[in-house]
Formats: sequence, structure tokens, C-alpha cells
Amino acid sequence: MAKSNPHFPKLRREYIFPIIEKKLFEMREKYPEAAIINVGIGDVSLPLAPSIAKAINLATIEMTDPSSLKGYGPSEGYPFLRKAIAENNYKDLSITWDEIFISDGINSDIANISELFHPRSVVAIPNPSYPVYLDANILAGRKVVLMPCLEATGCLPTVPEEKVDVIYLCSPSNPTGVAMTKVELTAFVEYARANQSVIIYDNAYSAFITSPDVPTSIYEIPHAKEVAIEFCSFSKSAGFTGLRCGFTVIPKEIQVFHGKKARPLWDLWSKRQSIKSNGVSYPIQRGALSIYSKEGKEETVFQVKSYLASAKAFYEGLRKLGYTCYGGMNAPYVWWKVPSPYTSWEFFDLLLNKCQLIAIPGSGFGEYGEGFIRLSAFTKLEHVHIALERIQKLDLHGKKI
Amino acid sequence: MAKSNPHFPKLRREYIFPIIEKKLFEMREKYPEAAIINVGIGDVSLPLAPSIAKAINLATIEMTDPSSLKGYGPSEGYPFLRKAIAENNYKDLSITWDEIFISDGINSDIANISELFHPRSVVAIPNPSYPVYLDANILAGRKVVLMPCLEATGCLPTVPEEKVDVIYLCSPSNPTGVAMTKVELTAFVEYARANQSVIIYDNAYSAFITSPDVPTSIYEIPHAKEVAIEFCSFSKSAGFTGLRCGFTVIPKEIQVFHGKKARPLWDLWSKRQSIKSNGVSYPIQRGALSIYSKEGKEETVFQVKSYLASAKAFYEGLRKLGYTCYGGMNAPYVWWKVPSPYTSWEFFDLLLNKCQLIAIPGSGFGEYGEGFIRLSAFTKLEHVHIALERIQKLDLHGKKI
Repeated sequence: MAKSNPHFPKLRREYIFPIIEKKLFEMREKYPEAAIINVGIGDVSLPLAPSIAKAINLATIEMTDPSSLKGYGPSEGYPFLRKAIAENNYKDLSITWDEIFISDGINSDIANISELFHPRSVVAIPNPSYPVYLDANILAGRKVVLMPCLEATGCLPTVPEEKVDVIYLCSPSNPTGVAMTKVELTAFVEYARANQSVIIYDNAYSAFITSPDVPTSIYEIPHAKEVAIEFCSFSKSAGFTGLRCGFTVIPKEIQVFHGKKARPLWDLWSKRQSIKSNGVSYPIQRGALSIYSKEGKEETVFQVKSYLASAKAFYEGLRKLGYTCYGGMNAPYVWWKVPSPYTSWEFFDLLLNKCQLIAIPGSGFGEYGEGFIRLSAFTKLEHVHIALERIQKLDLHGKKI
Repeated sequence: MAKSNPHFPKLRREYIFPIIEKKLFEMREKYPEAAIINVGIGDVSLPLAPSIAKAINLATIEMTDPSSLKGYGPSEGYPFLRKAIAENNYKDLSITWDEIFISDGINSDIANISELFHPRSVVAIPNPSYPVYLDANILAGRKVVLMPCLEATGCLPTVPEEKVDVIYLCSPSNPTGVAMTKVELTAFVEYARANQSVIIYDNAYSAFITSPDVPTSIYEIPHAKEVAIEFCSFSKSAGFTGLRCGFTVIPKEIQVFHGKKARPLWDLWSKRQSIKSNGVSYPIQRGALSIYSKEGKEETVFQVKSYLASAKAFYEGLRKLGYTCYGGMNAPYVWWKVPSPYTSWEFFDLLLNKCQLIAIPGSGFGEYGEGFIRLSAFTKLEHVHIALERIQKLDLHGKKI
């Protein structure tokens, strides 16, 4: 008799997107004319850069010629892309190109990496955070320790008090939009070294970093190569959410233990990928390579700057209106403290119904996200200004309206 | 301390491709002029059909326009592709489009599906077979029962004598090239129904089926929808090995058990995908859709027929030379019985050194593959004829040369 993975019933996250869609549908039924502004989902809105499209198209045409046809590619990705990433992203950080594995985006790799660790590993996860970290570990039956990201700790996690085997971090953070400084990140690297833990570092938003004291890679922290895996994506930096390409960096120094025997984590991931993956589409990898061309760099940097301008406008606009909020400087997200006496969902409803604004209730990212709203800045500056005008008219005065 | 998944050291497969590459390298060093014919790896050699390339390129251009930009797609795939598959592949088999999940090829899904089952499930796997089935289950720590595919059973597995929870099948088979008839497949469906097992049906080669008594989908067998998941791919039928797209069919009737509680497997996979996948690249899904256009069908059917012609030539040519072989009629593979007294590897060496032919030793697909060689027919007919001429000159007479 086929028995199911016993951990499925333990998934307890509130699946907020179907709820949001239902509320949105009801609102549209009621007010078909409403000019809704969506600052909910963290998806890009600027079109794909022409130079990237050109590279994908050329690579696709290559496939139609027997002399340049590409069949199965390497499961870890093509060397041309791995080498370009090493040269451009890790030039001074002594990451070698074979430590870079091409992925179809962070989501799958950051979930699948969990397979490398012992089922009884203890895993520390920031809360609020990207829900995949928690769910992937619940499905693997692991013990999870939450690291609350509270206002008191700058909306960031602090090192766990107990010993844990694996630590998830995301900086700049989704959802809080706050980035860890070198000093803050060093504390985690030191903790991991002291405890022989592995850090799973979600670096999806590094392209948005503007503060000089925030590292754009965890490998800027001394000795991080001994303990940290870094996950990166072209999704937000180059508009690849619909194309699917990213990369995972696993330095060969990182060790995991089988009894007393240490083994490089790199070996396990190589083996895992050779078994379970046939790699990423060739034309898409060629598209990703073109991000590093002169044209590609100019076009994608322009996009990131546009999103950052929207984030800054949101952050500063809300502050001017007297609200408390975080993020918006090194990330495309603003973490808005819900004014008393609202809950996240109540304030979501208010924003939807009174401002025609779709945001994300912070509680969707974990219990410590309650009391906050995530605003996403992947929208035009003019939409941010309209949104702020509507918010200004709310005039709450500390009571529910 | 980060401990590793304790099952990694149990992976015991002989990784044949690095060995083959080394032998090939040595041969090229010794005889730089040798005209090597590669009938080893099962990868396509005909270029991508122009209509598919056109569809991918149009979809990529769509991405450069804000009004037609596609960001994150559904993790289970776009409805346009799911519906086209339902209409074209499953029209009379009452599979609904929402039972079809788009994948980046069979490899990842057929490995990842294992996550849905209990760690202590007993799994039956044909031997020889595609090594991913075994490795994915070893990594999950499962008990594996081998189903030998012997000459005596027509190079096909027979239903297990003991009770198993999950059964892997591949028909037409990689590597033996033999396909199961309706009668043979019905025995497995009946076994699965009697034992509440789930069949994992690898249907990668259905486009190559020519025999009328061989089903092109397991759902042609009565009641298969209650027990079987089918995995399909555009890799071999439309030259997608380098593009990465396929699909997995999970009928809603299939149940797995948590204690006494039954739950549709469809639910678990939907949940798994929503957590661990962000779906397949949009332009690639548009390319896959174009396979179902008039032009796409003509171009891809032509390719499949070319490969089948090569397979048939290999099969008939070898038989004419007095060799025993299987497959080649409903699959792009010929399973060649190694003449006595050679082992698979010895015969591989002989073919490489005396015929400049690269094949795959059957033992690379499992211990019961020993004594065979897999020939892949993804090559031009003229190469098959040259290969056969070289083989004819071997003149073995039952002794090692």
C-alpha cells in the first residue's frame, strides 16, 4: 500500500495568495471601475532587456543547425555562464567557476539543498521569511528553530542561542527589505564556524544594495567560504522571473559529517544534481550570459535603479505621512508597520477597499510578520505616488474605519 | 554540526560516462584520425524544428513588451500547454488538463516524485533501467526490490512476487528498447490495484511506438487512472534535450495513505510543486505548444521516423550478421546481446578499438544489464550502415580477439 510522506499534514502555512485573489475578485465584482494598484507580489514589471532577448533568440536559432545544436547540457550548467559569473560576481572573492552551479532560479535549489542534510538536523529559520525555507524543512521532517525578526532587532534575525546544524538567512531580506551589515553577518559566520553549522544564504536581492556597509556577497565576510552556501538569481536583477535562471555557490571548503567522516558538501550537491537534474535550458543560459555584456549591464542596472527609486519613494512617502516602516534602501521591499489597532489582514482589507491597493499581509511570511504589511516596489514611480496619495486620505487617527 | 544525508554513501552505481570519456580520450590520443561513430548517449542529433524555434523566439520577443511580459508563471505550467497536451495526447483517455503538470523534463520529476511517499516504502525497480530511479530511492533511504529484465522474460520486468508500495516501469524501455504490450502492462495495473501500489510510468519514448498492441499511454489500460502516474517528455519526440520541457500526469483518482486516511496524490504533488518549483521558462513552454501545430507535428514526426529508420537498420543489420538483439521497433534503442565470451565492458572496448564505435555497456544500467550493449539510434542512417560494415569485419568466431 502506497503510504504518503508523513510530514505533509504538518504544513501549516496560511496560503495567502488564494485568499488575496478571492478578495480581489470580490472587490472587482463590486467595483468594476476601481483602478487597482498591485504592490503585492514580488514580480518584475519592466520588460525583458532587448539585449537579453536577442541572445536567447540567437541561441535558439543555433539549435536549428545540426553543427551548433545543443542536446543535453551539463547538469551543473554550461562553463561559459559559470565562468562569467565567477569573473563578474566573485572576482575578488576567490570563488572558482566550478563552485558555481546554474539553477532554474533560487526556489528549487534552496528547497532541494535540504536533501543533503541529515533528516534529524536542527534548522534555524528567520521569521518572517520566504515561506519555502520552512515548508521544505517541514516536508523533510526536520526540527525547526525560529529566529524572530523583530523591530527590536532591526527586523533582522540574531544568532540562535542553541546549537543548530543549518541556518537560513536572507539579506537583503524578503519580506522586511532590511539588509545585514558586515558586522551583523560576521556574527552568523562566526557562530557557524564555532558550531560547524552550514549557512544557507539567500542573496536574491544583492543587486539592490546601496549601503556601503552591506556586503553584496556573504563571501566578503572572512572565512564565510568554510560555512556558507550562497543562492543568487537573475529574476529580480535582470527580469528573469518568467525565464528561470539563477545560480548556487558551494565552496569546496564546506564540510558535512557522516559519523566522524567529513565530506565536502560540494561533492554531495554535484552528485545530487547529476542524479536529479538535466540542467537549465541552453537558450536561457545564453540569455543569462548576455546580462554580463556592456549592453546587458546597462539595461539591467537601469531597471534595478527604477525599482529602487520606487522603493525609496514608498519608504520616504510613508515616513512623511507619519508611519513607521523599514527597508526600501537595499531592497525592493518596504516593511510597513500596521497602525494600531489593526492586524495585518485587517489593514490589508482596508488598503484594498479604501485605497484599491494590493499589498501582502506580513503574517503570510510567518507569525512574527503579524503587525506588518509588505509593499513591493516593482512598480512605476507614478503608481507609488498615486498609492501614497490614496494612503494619505485614509486619515486613521488610531481607530478602525 | 551539519550532518549529511546518511544515504549518500550507499550510492553504488558505476558512473560509466566518465569511464567512457576517458577511454575515448585515450583512443583519440592514439589514433587521432579515427572516424568515431557515437551510438552511446541517448541524445538527439537532428536540429530543432524551425517552427519550434520560431515559437520560442516570438515568445521571447513578447517578454520585451510591458503589455505582454510574463513574470512568474504557474508552478504547474501554463494552462495553454496543459490543455494542448490533454487535447492531443489524452483526448479519448479522459485525462483532464489540470491533471497534467509541466516539467523541465522527466529526470527531475521522476526523481522528485519520490518525496511524496513514505521513507519506509518498498519500491520495485526494473533492472536494467534508467539509473535515476534507483539512485533517487537510495538517497531517500528506501528498500528497493529489483525486477530483473531478462531474455527469458523478453527483456521486460514481471510483477513482483512480494508486496511493494511503488513500482517503476519504463516502456518502451530504456535501455532494452522493448515495449510492453497491453496484456503485459495490464498485469502490472492489476497488481497495483490489488496491492494499492502506485506505478511510476516512464513514457519518454511513446512517440516511437509502431506496434499496434503496444499502448502509447498507460491510461489505455482499464483502471490505470487509479494507480499510475505517467511521465512524458518532448526531449526525444521533438528534440528538446537541450531546451528542457516535459510533463507529468497525475490523475486525481490515485490515492496514498496516511494511517487510514486516504489522500489524492494529486494534492501532494500540487503542494510539493507550489513549494519547490517556480515552473518552466515561458518561451520554452510556448515552444512546446508549437509541437502541436500542423507544422510542428509534421517536422517532429519526420524526425522520429528518421531515428526509427536508424533503429530498424541497426536491429535488422545485426540480426543478419547472426547476432541476438532486442528492441529497435518501438524505441530508439537496440539491446545487443554480447557474443560469448565477452563481458559488456570487454565488448565495449572491442567496439571502440576495432570498430571506432561508442556504445554503452549494459551493466551501466544495472547488474542484469551485464552481457548486453545498448546502441542508440539517434544517428544518421548512413552512420548505421558504416557501423554495421565495421561490425561485420569483426569476425569473432566465439573467441576473444
